[in-house]
Parts: sequence; C-alpha cells; structure tokens
Amino acid sequence: MPPPSPAAPSQGSARQTGISSPSTALELDRAHVFHSWSAQGSLQPMTIEGGLGCEVWDDTGRRYLDFSSQLVNVNIGHQHPRVVEAIAEQAHLLTTVAPGHANLTRGRAARLITERAPDGLDKVFFTNGGADANENAMRMARLHTGRSKVLSAYRSYHGNTGSAVVATGDWRRIPNELAHGHVHFFTPYLFRSDFWASTPEEECARALEHLARVVECEGPSSIAAILLETVPGTAGVLTPPPGYLAGVREIADRHGILLILDEVMAGFGRTGHWFAFDDHAVRPDLVTFAKGVNSGYVPAGGVIIDALVAATFDDRVFPGGLTYSGHPLAMAAIVGTLEAMADEGIVENARTVGSEHIGPGLRALADAHPMIGEVRGSGVFWALELVADPATRQPVAPAVVGAVKKGCLDRGLLPFVADNRLHVVPPCVVTPAEVARALAVYDEVLTEVEAGL
Amino acid sequence: MPPPSPAAPSQGSARQTGISSPSTALELDRAHVFHSWSAQGSLQPMTIEGGLGCEVWDDTGRRYLDFSSQLVNVNIGHQHPRVVEAIAEQAHLLTTVAPGHANLTRGRAARLITERAPDGLDKVFFTNGGADANENAMRMARLHTGRSKVLSAYRSYHGNTGSAVVATGDWRRIPNELAHGHVHFFTPYLFRSDFWASTPEEECARALEHLARVVECEGPSSIAAILLETVPGTAGVLTPPPGYLAGVREIADRHGILLILDEVMAGFGRTGHWFAFDDHAVRPDLVTFAKGVNSGYVPAGGVIIDALVAATFDDRVFPGGLTYSGHPLAMAAIVGTLEAMADEGIVENARTVGSEHIGPGLRALADAHPMIGEVRGSGVFWALELVADPATRQPVAPAVVGAVKKGCLDRGLLPFVADNRLHVVPPCVVTPAEVARALAVYDEVLTEVEAGL
Repeated sequence: MPPPSPAAPSQGSARQTGISSPSTALELDRAHVFHSWSAQGSLQPMTIEGGLGCEVWDDTGRRYLDFSSQLVNVNIGHQHPRVVEAIAEQAHLLTTVAPGHANLTRGRAARLITERAPDGLDKVFFTNGGADANENAMRMARLHTGRSKVLSAYRSYHGNTGSAVVATGDWRRIPNELAHGHVHFFTPYLFRSDFWASTPEEECARALEHLARVVECEGPSSIAAILLETVPGTAGVLTPPPGYLAGVREIADRHGILLILDEVMAGFGRTGHWFAFDDHAVRPDLVTFAKGVNSGYVPAGGVIIDALVAATFDDRVFPGGLTYSGHPLAMAAIVGTLEAMADEGIVENARTVGSEHIGPGLRALADAHPMIGEVRGSGVFWALELVADPATRQPVAPAVVGAVKKGCLDRGLLPFVADNRLHVVPPCVVTPAEVARALAVYDEVLTEVEAGL
Repeated sequence: MPPPSPAAPSQGSARQTGISSPSTALELDRAHVFHSWSAQGSLQPMTIEGGLGCEVWDDTGRRYLDFSSQLVNVNIGHQHPRVVEAIAEQAHLLTTVAPGHANLTRGRAARLITERAPDGLDKVFFTNGGADANENAMRMARLHTGRSKVLSAYRSYHGNTGSAVVATGDWRRIPNELAHGHVHFFTPYLFRSDFWASTPEEECARALEHLARVVECEGPSSIAAILLETVPGTAGVLTPPPGYLAGVREIADRHGILLILDEVMAGFGRTGHWFAFDDHAVRPDLVTFAKGVNSGYVPAGGVIIDALVAATFDDRVFPGGLTYSGHPLAMAAIVGTLEAMADEGIVENARTVGSEHIGPGLRALADAHPMIGEVRGSGVFWALELVADPATRQPVAPAVVGAVKKGCLDRGLLPFVADNRLHVVPPCVVTPAEVARALAVYDEVLTEVEAGL
C-alpha cells in the first residue's frame, strides 16, 4: 500500500496563512487533543497516517523505519493483511457484544492464548489493555489469598489507574477494599546495581536475599502477590539474570504468595519467545498481557489464570468487569495475529534476527562508541545505555537524548528513547536488511552527537 | 444481513456426545473464558453471533429484540453500516498509532466531540473506556486544584480500577500520590428517599443541604472534585430533580471545587440529548464519556476538558497515559457514529420515541401491574421498580427478577435487569413498532409472573 498523497494543505502553509478552522492532522491535534505524559503547551507531534510492515509515513508521505513499534506494541508489523482482514471481517459480522454473553470469536481467542501458556493456565479474563489486566490480576490474587499486600519493583511500570473503584459508590466497591498495601523492592540491574554486586551471579543472589528480607519484614502472611514484569521494559529492558525468577518463585511458594508476571510489553514474540518467561524456567500463577497479543490493532489485554486461582471464583462472584471485556473486534485481531505469527514463524524470526543481527550489530556499535555503556536484550527487545562517562556510567543529559532522537528522525528512523536510553524495539517481522539500515543510522547519529559534545 | 445458519453442531449435542475438544461458542467459553461480575461455576451464557439495528441473534439463528443495548452502549443500534464502513476503511489505512503522534482521524473525532460540548470544553483526552476516563478526570482535578479528596455518590458506578498506578514503581507513581481521599454522599432518589422527603422539591433541597454539610465537614479546601453520573445509570436511571445539578454546581463554585459529570452511560443520545446535562442547565468542568460515543463498536472513552483545567498542563507534565489513547480504529468509529447520529436524527429519535411511546407505554403498564412501583426515565433510558408491595415499596426477590428475565428471553426479548429493576434501554434507533413489541412482552411476562406469586 503506497503512502497517500497529501490531500490537505501542508501543516506549515495552513498554519502560516492563518486559516482559522483547523483541518490538518497537526492543527486538529493542537486544537482538540490532550496528550498523555506531556506538558501540552509546546508539543509539535509528528503525524502518522499510514504504515506497512516496519515502516510508517506521515501526512506528506515521508516514510520512517519504525524501530519503536509505536509503544513497543506492533509486534507483527504495521497493517499485516491477515489481521486487517480479520478485523474487517468481524466488523461486518458483529462489532460489539456484552461480556456476559458467549461469542465464538472470543472463545477462539482465549483458546489460542491458553494453548501457548503453561499447562493449567487455562482461562482468560479479557480487559482493554495492560493497566486493567494488572488491576484484575491483583484483584484475583488478593481475593484468592485473602491478603492485601502486593510487592512490585521500583523499576517497573504496570499502568496508571488507581481511583475509579474507590470513587464508585455501589456494592462493587466493597469486595475490592482489600486493595491496599503496595510495597516496592529492588530488582536485578547489574549495570546500576542496588546491591553493590559485580557479577550476574552476585546480583542475582543478593536481589533474592533482599526480596526475602522484604517479605520477612512485611509479614509473609499479609502478602497476596509478587508482581513483576518478566523483563522490565520501560525501565530499561532489564532481562533478569539466570535463576532470579526461579528464586522469586521459590520465595513466593514458601509463603503461599502468588506470582504475577506482567508480559504486557515482553510477551507475544518481543523477546523471541511466545512468553518472556519461557526462557526462565518459571511458572507464574497469573500472566497479564496486552500489546503484542494483537499488536494493538484493537485495544485489548487480559489475564491468563491458573486453574487453582480460577476455582476460587467457581462459587464466589468475581468482583471485577468492564464493558469491553472480550470485545469481538479485539478478539478477531487476536485470532488473526496469533495464527499469522504461528504460520509465518514470526516469533522465530524475532529470535533469530535478534541473536544473529541486532545483538552482534549493537555490540559492534558499542565497541565503536564510548557513549554506549551497555547493550542488553534479546529478540527485538534491546536497550543501549547512553553514558556521559564510561567509567562512572553517568547517564547522558536529556539534551543528548533529544539530539539522538532528532538525528534518527532526520534520517527517517523512528526511535524509542526512555530516560538516558535508546531502546531498539522494531516489530518482530524486521528483516536483516532493515536492521542494517537502522544500525547505520544509529552509527551516524552517535558519531555526530559524540562529535558535538 | 440474515442470521448465519449454524455451522457447528449445536451446543447441546456436542456436549452430550462428550466431544473432548471444545469447538462451539459455548464450549469454548466454558473452557477458556473467565467472566466479569460472576461466579464462574454455573454460568450458561447465551451466545450472540450477529446483530442488526435493535436485533441480535445467537449461533442457532434465533433472534432477540435487544432492549439492553448490551451494556447500555449500542446507542446507534447494531452494525450500523456507516460505522462498520468507517472501521473497515480505517483498518485498511492504519489500525494503530502511538498516542504521542498526531493523526487526522483522531483530530476529527476530538473536534466532533468538542463541537457538541459547551463552549470552552475544547480538548479531549482519549482512553479505552469509562473507568480510565474517570481515572484521568480525577487525576486532572486533583492536580489542577492541588487537593486530594473526591466526593461521589453512594448510588454510583464509575469503573473498577484502583491499583495499577500504586503498584507501578517508576516516577509515574509519584505525581499520582495525591490520589487518596474518597468520600461518598447521598443523592436524590425520591422513591427511596435518604432524606425523609415527600416531594421532588423537598428531595432536591434536602439533598443539596446534605451535600453542603458533607463538604463543610470534610473541609472544602481539601476537596478537588465532586464526581457525579449526570443520570446515575446502573443505580437505577435516577434522573435528578430540576435544580439539583445547578445546586451542586453552586456548592462547587463556592469552594473552588471542580464538577466532573460522568456521561459514560447517559451521554451521546441515551437521554434524548447529546449530553444528559444539556437538560439540566449545568456546565461541568470535566465530562467523562465512553459507550455511546461510538456505541462500543471499538473500545474508547475519554475526558472533555475545560480550557482552564487544560491550561494547568501547558507547562506541567500531565502524569497519565495509556498505549491505546486515541486509537485510530476507535476514532474512526467515533467519527462514523457521530456523523451518522447527526445526519439521521438519531438523538431526536430517542427523545421522541421516549416521550411519545416508551414513557406513555410504561406508565400504562404500571397502571395495569401493581408490581411496578415506579416508572422513571427519558429518551431510551428508563427503569421500572419492581416491588413486592406497592405500599412499602419493598423490592421483589431476586428469583422474581430472574423469572422476569427468563420470561423475556423465552419471548425473544433481551432485557436488562439490575437489582430489583427492569431497565428499558433499547438503542436510540428503536422504532415505535419495536417499542410496541417490547411492551407486549413485558405485559405478558409481568402478568405471568404476578400470577405465579
């Protein structure tokens, strides 16, 4: 599908001639759209109007190689024809159905998801995205254990909801009032160790000792769940050292604590596996997902539930729900995505391209650029630590990250930056040639930025 | 579009012959789908596989008149061709784009929404549904006022999220820690008055006195917002008496408190107006919406923001966001829905059918059936109070509601029941003939149920 030719006057000219009624994407955006995680005053967002595979284009037809996967969600690439077709077909059949009814597309989506999960994780509760997936996983854990506290990592992001059920006045608030007590702890991150460790083994052992101490001090019998991103994503693609997650599982088991693994960003191909925990010899009790499950083509998320936890709610009302739980369009996109990913070996592609092209390429880049303090990742889930000083590992200043981002955009590459890091997170369908193009852009930009310092 | 002929063996026979691999909608549902607000053990949900206008059908082709609008969301009716086409068209153009970018469809959706809102409510923050709309409205109110408390009604539902941002460990948790302090108060409901009132005027005056006392006792300078459903929906379609909302606005203004009106269920045609508050001479600071904005064809919600509140975040980062904020497919469905509703006079239809057919019909039904204690509503948003005793107004037992529900389903009518009430909530496109059919079913069922008591 070719990029469209721009139908409206370009943003610049429309703005300069003082047309009063906004009509371009940027004008309408600035007039009426309030943006997340931003100060609104000075925003000048780029437009995106189309995409295909690893490319997107703006409203002038300018193309970009998308090494952000938007918000690390377009695992299958943009506009995969089988997923687009699945959505269009379901749209013509039935767009919406209340969660209380049964629907074939929803059942098929749930089966495809549970088939990829460990034995015994057989049921899915569907949500609109990752935040409410974590909400419902914590709800299940609290009600299953009768305990209130949830332990999670300082270096984590699990969504940003926190008030609606407390503001709700009717009975549905009451069974959710166990929902208090959140304690944060430190997790492995050898490059900036919170445990004065110097090897992965030491980092792992000390992180587990620290967690065991937190559990002991908080009172094991008050703790419903330990909630962890299998591979913390926004925090910096912090793949845990071998043995860490198995150790967490052991601590949890010792005290009847549930283990919830948040696979919202890491799941469905991102690490080169269906689930990131497939590579860590650990079996969670609850798995939360969103993003990659249908590449965000339609908003969807959910919780995969162990049979023992699900059984708690056989005779007891589960006090959670939402209008669009198991939405048919979202479900059709899941079916289309998971079938296409399996048939086309897309997870395997992410694994191979990651180990044979992205990893070696980024490590070569690190050898050439002192600004790269560390390369971490697997599959299509990588982070480069940009440091001002390789010895102290001091992060580069925000302006440097801004210059890297601008340099990439100027060269037609859409990057993903977070704090002092460049995350290399293309779709799972990325080709070796596209990786080579991106590596060349990173190389040029880092050379230019380093020269300017 | 005709109902499909059943391709799979019927649920009953498949189950009875002991086929081990589930394949029908019901089998897959029971094997893999975890349901909201339910005990899971004994669920036997009906299937819904298709729909058109005010009708849906199951996987055997059996048709039902949908007087539930699913979860009171299908305002435009099922499978409106213009909305289906808008979704399919956008699916082929671009399904997903990160919220940080600008996109023409998103800008057009935001413009169409703000054009229907009061002057000065010019910006929209998009979410996935109603819960996160309320989350973000409360967030805005707390950060705008620097106060923490939110007052809301005991008879209310505002969504069921409450933990994710607290579990989050990174910086995004910190600016959200104002989010504590929720106080519930009583609101007007003359039929079961919490104020010992006997007229609407008395109920209104006393409800306002009560709210003023709560505000005074909680400390006005600690209160960020009063959050109200304009017409509390699930609580029983509790249209406030004339003057109540204007009185709430006055109390809020006296103390620099923001007024958030939750129009998730009541908005976009349900009451026979674009917004339910259009009929109440009140201007909110923040409006939350979902459901009717695109009839739930694609999950979407949002907050319409007053310019003064929006300006707080011109130079200050708004600490909220979500991956699917302003999702292109959801936005296309909004554009298609709002244009079709305007062009086809769908809001006006809801108003007229409500005042000329549903209202008079339900009142006639109440005259004939002592079980109906009260008829309330407007547009396509009505509730019947089913009482065991007209004098004491004691609610009927759950089994009676169950019998009413079953009687309706047996006669091909999909009803909406809540507590002791029958909510009459068809799509806004409902015709006088469909209303007559439904009224006849209600009449028959109530006669039968009353006879059995």
